[in-house]
Amino acid sequence: MSKLYQFTLDPYCRRVRLALAEKGLTPQLADERPWAPSQQLLDLNPSGLLPVWADETGQAICGIEAVGEFLEERHPEKSLLPGNAWARAEARRIVAWFDVKFYTEVTEPLLTEKVVKRFMPGSAAPDMARVRLALQNLKPHLDYLALLAEERSWLAGDELSLADLAAAAHLSAIDYLGDINWRENQVARSWYERIKSRPAFRVLLSDTVAAMPPAPHYAELDF
Amino acid sequence: MSKLYQFTLDPYCRRVRLALAEKGLTPQLADERPWAPSQQLLDLNPSGLLPVWADETGQAICGIEAVGEFLEERHPEKSLLPGNAWARAEARRIVAWFDVKFYTEVTEPLLTEKVVKRFMPGSAAPDMARVRLALQNLKPHLDYLALLAEERSWLAGDELSLADLAAAAHLSAIDYLGDINWRENQVARSWYERIKSRPAFRVLLSDTVAAMPPAPHYAELDF
Repeated sequence: MSKLYQFTLDPYCRRVRLALAEKGLTPQLADERPWAPSQQLLDLNPSGLLPVWADETGQAICGIEAVGEFLEERHPEKSLLPGNAWARAEARRIVAWFDVKFYTEVTEPLLTEKVVKRFMPGSAAPDMARVRLALQNLKPHLDYLALLAEERSWLAGDELSLADLAAAAHLSAIDYLGDINWRENQVARSWYERIKSRPAFRVLLSDTVAAMPPAPHYAELDF
Repeated sequence: MSKLYQFTLDPYCRRVRLALAEKGLTPQLADERPWAPSQQLLDLNPSGLLPVWADETGQAICGIEAVGEFLEERHPEKSLLPGNAWARAEARRIVAWFDVKFYTEVTEPLLTEKVVKRFMPGSAAPDMARVRLALQNLKPHLDYLALLAEERSWLAGDELSLADLAAAAHLSAIDYLGDINWRENQVARSWYERIKSRPAFRVLLSDTVAAMPPAPHYAELDF
């Protein structure tokens, strides 16, 4: 059995979990705290960055891009970068939207202030101004997602791709915290409902972080 | 002629310039300021993120991962991800080391404090404590680079790869600022000397940022 070194609410780890599940792979999960990587993780990835995926032989693949591309190359049975080179570029453009812009403006401040500061020893109090700004930033991002979801079957085109998985990874992390008011954006909600109903998504719905239960609607398919 | 929307000292734009040059492609450069993206850039990439590469027909590819992978797929004549899937995973691991860890700990604070704050209207004064910390962080990174360079011909293996280009992109940006004391690490210096001597590297050596000339040794092959 393969093994995924991960932190439950980290959006990059969540994307890998979704990708593995879409491809029918079921890893064992090894929980890590990003602010205090274990020696085992550092032995596999000296940078300490998550996610790290070790295959059945224990050989490790380090980082979201490396794991994502390795899975596409070695497990092509359900492609998450379908179409031609231009279609793949469009999927990767949207992945970058979420992994860089959305992460900087929304995911990182919410996770840092609400989760990391709660568990990391010696942290300062949460900066509520950062939280409020991140929640304001969320709205135009949901509008952009809705713009894509109205024009296309899935975010990057006719088929599900890494773009949908990246978006779902970030949104589900902050949905766990109860920070998305889905009633404000029906198009985004309808896209999220579709991806949440996929069998692969089940791996995320049973998530729990110790001493921090999910928002009540987190695991509901009708939310 | 293709066109690259870029900021001269941005390490992701620098990596694309190196990759294009290794593949024999010569784009026209369109200078952008990351803190104030032009309307032309926003029309191509609504996130405003750099780099954006538009091919001869004007069709745009947005973001470092999208451009890097597109070039590998459509211009495979000089592969920058050579070998098998495991070799590619190792190259991407090292790319993440520089693009995530090195960027966070070294490049971003130095560029923000020394460059962005100098040119962005209404910026606060440079935070010299951040600069000092980034310069301290640089040393263990050069040691890690030297560890790889001692074991291997190039950072990820026997052949030049995106790993070397990513490392060179970050290091050359801060070398422009004069922030690397190459005498302190002869192995890292010797690797940098080799990559700096490649014909493709010439595209970076003539760089100048208005009102901010490069460090005196920046363009010297014997530094």
